Amino acid sequence: MYFSSWLSQLYRGLSRPIGRTTQPIWVSLSRNLVLSSQRKIPEFSSFVARTNTCGELRSSHLGQEVTLCGWIQYRRKNMFLVLRDCHGLVQVIIPQDESAASVKKILCEAPLESVVRISGAVISRPPGQENPKMPTGEIEIKVKTAELLNSCKKLPFEIKDFVKKTEALRLQYRYLDLRSVQMQYNLRLRSQMVMKMREYLCNLHGFVDVETPTLFKRTPGGAREFLVPSREPGKFYSLPQSPQQFKQLLMVGGLDRYFQVARCYRDEGSRPDRQPEFTQIDIEMSFVDQTGIQSLIEGLLQYSWPSDRDPVVIPFPSMTFAEALATYGTDKPDTRFGMKIIDISDVFRNTKSEFLQDALRKPQGTVKAMCVREGAEVLPVFLKANSNWNSPAAKFIVEEQRLELTRIMETREEDMVLLTAGEHKKACSLLGKLRLECAHLLEGRGVVLRDPTCFSFLWVVDFPLFLPKEGNPRELESAHHPFTAPHPSDGHLLYTAPEKVRSQHYDLVLNGNEIGGGSIRIHDAELQGYILSTLLKEDATLLSHLLQALDYGAPPHGGIALGLDRLMCLVTGAPSIRDVIAFPKSFQGRDLMSNVPDSVPSEELKPYHIQVSWPTDSEAEKRKESFTPSRKLRVLSSVLHQC
Amino acid sequence: MYFSSWLSQLYRGLSRPIGRTTQPIWVSLSRNLVLSSQRKIPEFSSFVARTNTCGELRSSHLGQEVTLCGWIQYRRKNMFLVLRDCHGLVQVIIPQDESAASVKKILCEAPLESVVRISGAVISRPPGQENPKMPTGEIEIKVKTAELLNSCKKLPFEIKDFVKKTEALRLQYRYLDLRSVQMQYNLRLRSQMVMKMREYLCNLHGFVDVETPTLFKRTPGGAREFLVPSREPGKFYSLPQSPQQFKQLLMVGGLDRYFQVARCYRDEGSRPDRQPEFTQIDIEMSFVDQTGIQSLIEGLLQYSWPSDRDPVVIPFPSMTFAEALATYGTDKPDTRFGMKIIDISDVFRNTKSEFLQDALRKPQGTVKAMCVREGAEVLPVFLKANSNWNSPAAKFIVEEQRLELTRIMETREEDMVLLTAGEHKKACSLLGKLRLECAHLLEGRGVVLRDPTCFSFLWVVDFPLFLPKEGNPRELESAHHPFTAPHPSDGHLLYTAPEKVRSQHYDLVLNGNEIGGGSIRIHDAELQGYILSTLLKEDATLLSHLLQALDYGAPPHGGIALGLDRLMCLVTGAPSIRDVIAFPKSFQGRDLMSNVPDSVPSEELKPYHIQVSWPTDSEAEKRKESFTPSRKLRVLSSVLHQC
Repeated sequence: MYFSSWLSQLYRGLSRPIGRTTQPIWVSLSRNLVLSSQRKIPEFSSFVARTNTCGELRSSHLGQEVTLCGWIQYRRKNMFLVLRDCHGLVQVIIPQDESAASVKKILCEAPLESVVRISGAVISRPPGQENPKMPTGEIEIKVKTAELLNSCKKLPFEIKDFVKKTEALRLQYRYLDLRSVQMQYNLRLRSQMVMKMREYLCNLHGFVDVETPTLFKRTPGGAREFLVPSREPGKFYSLPQSPQQFKQLLMVGGLDRYFQVARCYRDEGSRPDRQPEFTQIDIEMSFVDQTGIQSLIEGLLQYSWPSDRDPVVIPFPSMTFAEALATYGTDKPDTRFGMKIIDISDVFRNTKSEFLQDALRKPQGTVKAMCVREGAEVLPVFLKANSNWNSPAAKFIVEEQRLELTRIMETREEDMVLLTAGEHKKACSLLGKLRLECAHLLEGRGVVLRDPTCFSFLWVVDFPLFLPKEGNPRELESAHHPFTAPHPSDGHLLYTAPEKVRSQHYDLVLNGNEIGGGSIRIHDAELQGYILSTLLKEDATLLSHLLQALDYGAPPHGGIALGLDRLMCLVTGAPSIRDVIAFPKSFQGRDLMSNVPDSVPSEELKPYHIQVSWPTDSEAEKRKESFTPSRKLRVLSSVLHQC
Repeated sequence: MYFSSWLSQLYRGLSRPIGRTTQPIWVSLSRNLVLSSQRKIPEFSSFVARTNTCGELRSSHLGQEVTLCGWIQYRRKNMFLVLRDCHGLVQVIIPQDESAASVKKILCEAPLESVVRISGAVISRPPGQENPKMPTGEIEIKVKTAELLNSCKKLPFEIKDFVKKTEALRLQYRYLDLRSVQMQYNLRLRSQMVMKMREYLCNLHGFVDVETPTLFKRTPGGAREFLVPSREPGKFYSLPQSPQQFKQLLMVGGLDRYFQVARCYRDEGSRPDRQPEFTQIDIEMSFVDQTGIQSLIEGLLQYSWPSDRDPVVIPFPSMTFAEALATYGTDKPDTRFGMKIIDISDVFRNTKSEFLQDALRKPQGTVKAMCVREGAEVLPVFLKANSNWNSPAAKFIVEEQRLELTRIMETREEDMVLLTAGEHKKACSLLGKLRLECAHLLEGRGVVLRDPTCFSFLWVVDFPLFLPKEGNPRELESAHHPFTAPHPSDGHLLYTAPEKVRSQHYDLVLNGNEIGGGSIRIHDAELQGYILSTLLKEDATLLSHLLQALDYGAPPHGGIALGLDRLMCLVTGAPSIRDVIAFPKSFQGRDLMSNVPDSVPSEELKPYHIQVSWPTDSEAEKRKESFTPSRKLRVLSSVLHQC
């Protein structure tokens, strides 16, 4: 893929890069400015020592004297070379006559990836030598002067997309990896999409971009927050996981409509495809309900969606959490394909099978099934099942039940049915995981299940407000966070059966990935205090400022945050969020380029009144074990799997 | 000042808020979208439970049924109240008839600053009761329904701009302080200016907005960097003072034009009018020279400048560091007024005064003077000088010298001349400080020196590359940072007289404040290594990744960073940068609202392998002393002074 083809796609909304008489086709952005001066918008060569970019030259430039700056990508027989900048490639003819000996010397002796500036005329390629695959393929540059701006030493790898590198090598030399077409595309598209989001929020809907602090207070139960020692002995800042408290306080402060492209921090130790710092499109509004936020976000994504993709269709479909779980076995269903989970408990109400009887007798006990179309043929390894009910489960199922099942599941020949019996949530979750595994395996064998150009958005709503606490299921914890408002229909249950209360939380799911979540917040101080102290048994003093703020005329408000890294990963089709971040950390939280985190001289710790607690030998040994190759491989395999 | 007046100014470029037939007068932003639907851009009431904002209603809305949400600002005799939202104020008539008893009860019983939603008709005020000072002063709302959305408890202070509060109280209840007209204006203007900057950079000039990490490596000599402990024992991240290394690496990566509204961190302990985290408009370009960056920034400020101010005139004047020091005694001259420093050494070449002889004999010895117009009259306290040379210095100065001085200084009656003799830099700096003190005192006595509506930009260039190291003047340290390129004319001096080398650094000064600085960078690995290791004697291993990157085809590049907080402070005329930041820290680095930094349970320190080194009693005592009232007062006084 040539540079210019994606770049022109990327900027095609702004201008068609076809010469000086560019016609702007995007309605925005100073139309009269462009028309009056016939300048290209954006101007990629303003303020610098070149007249044009390498990728923009066409037949319409013929005869022009141009100055270009770029990297020597390729050279053949000292006759010509290919010069590259971030906008594309152009062919440059090395002069062979005596009088240009110094120019020839510079261009022939400079190692590949050296940086040069050349001046010369745009000329036609000789007939038959045009390259239709190359956007600049009709022309070449007849060089008059050349200057070596910087010579390049031997590289650790070639800057060519088809040269495969390990990710560790790419991260170690990130500044070289960034020269690849794919990374250039990913970062530029990210910048463009965020800019469009800002236009939508600021210019179209009057949102205010407010920067909130990242040196803040730890939140109750915020065990995943990085600490920052201060110069006061024993006192620390925390790096917040989101601007949640600030955005709510801004609403109390009457800001009405806030957004921020917010840097957030979460210390999750080693987790694949997560980053210790990440970015979210953070939004909060006063006097809004769930529908309002949803419409806002639908408009936002539609407006900012890349113009070379199919347009986003709005409104997005919506599904309750209960339905998502029952039908797809997850709270983030991939709705690009079927294979829905079906409740077949009724088929087995009178079963003789003790196993099924037991399952159905338990609280929330069910029997669930999922039909994998043509699964028997392509997935023989999976359950050793085939269309003739040749299955370990067959003996539990009498003829009548078989007929009924075939009817309910709409089973056809060569289909495979996966059955599970047990507690509703567990049974659904299991089938949900198998559903994705089956899809993966089927696709691996050539069955077309999910269109890679399809973007399937889905709202998931009506989550439970609380969940049983991990490790202590008799207590409650917030399903999302303690500021989420209860569902208006369930308010009365807060005092009688809080575990049944649904929330006003909503998740935005794209192709089976959660890309955003938000809620209508609690604006009543008393209710907030009751939930924090009585139901969640949290230390409310850490939040006394917020509780107090709610008492001083807090408007009803709600918001959402979109995970920008994940969104860009899906939009670009990148295998990992690391491919849409300029300088990502490895999955162990390390910067492989600069070797971070790093040791610090102990005198630099003194002003912060801290010292290192070195682990004892046995602790160190334990730590070491957790990073043996086998564990590393497991983590790596998990990364690969997720990609 | 009414809300709407500034809001309409703020958004006047976008639309005149005078009813449904709004005419957009700004060329940008989807012109046809607006014209086709006659929607207002931006739409401040999209997605929410109101039809209009309080501040936008005019006679053109007469007869319309509207729904408004806002805070009860004021109520009189249970007859009417004033409702406020972030867009302004509107008068609401409380219904008095029996059938509306419940509405009346809600509106009369809700405490001030409670949040309500009302619906009703826009009607004319009775003749003679219009309020021309109030943008909505021709109309009022006849309420039909009302809902109390949230009641307000007794406030710690009134939300009225004329009610003076201490800054500590304002910071403690920041969410209430944000409701003030001034804070709303400051934050909204900041958001708007940054948005315009983004449009200029992204949409007009093809810059790429790239987010760079804030969990990074400490820089050599970076003693002011916050540390973030990691889960690896003894290993730390640092919060960088700027994205300097990343922006340079992005250039090596071929990004060509980078910008970021970057969060930066600097731990300076307690310093007035500084913040531990701050924001800079961070820019870097490849293939650019000093002139290119300067033109870019001039265009940026011109484009983003608030439309209700005098337009920015470009290009900005430029002055060398040497000239700035000699003429204004500082590297950030306030060029809004004269009182320049004049070298009068030649007048005293043959002086008999031993004091002056001594001064002139020393290396760089000079005699300098500054003339304070009418200073003798208004500053009698200052040097007890008067126009008759009635001064302690008079005895040193013979008649001939007096005449010569009067000629050079263009002294007139009632002027005061300040003389100083000594080493050039010290003499200039002293007069530079006195110059500002004099201006302050003169203005305090009613002399008009500096027009508060005037914005005087100035480039200061040709700084020295190195300065004598603080504490060890025989060694060198970077005047700015070690990546700054030497002045092209001075390259040869690097190896013979490095202290004489000028740099390609440039500062942008506005009204005597440094609001930005940048440089052309070193792109040659060998030169960068020589400066780091040989001249600066820094540990270059901390920067090995950068040195290596320069060897792999780094393009020539340069950049700049604008201090956004300081710039907004000057644009809004705010007394402190804390007034243009939503949630600032106090000058001791504390968040007074949430009480941060704070203690952390020791078990939360364990995963990070750190423990607190509690100061010994004597250390604690010393610490305490440094915060005795007298020091506090000094710091406070310094703050007040700077304001």
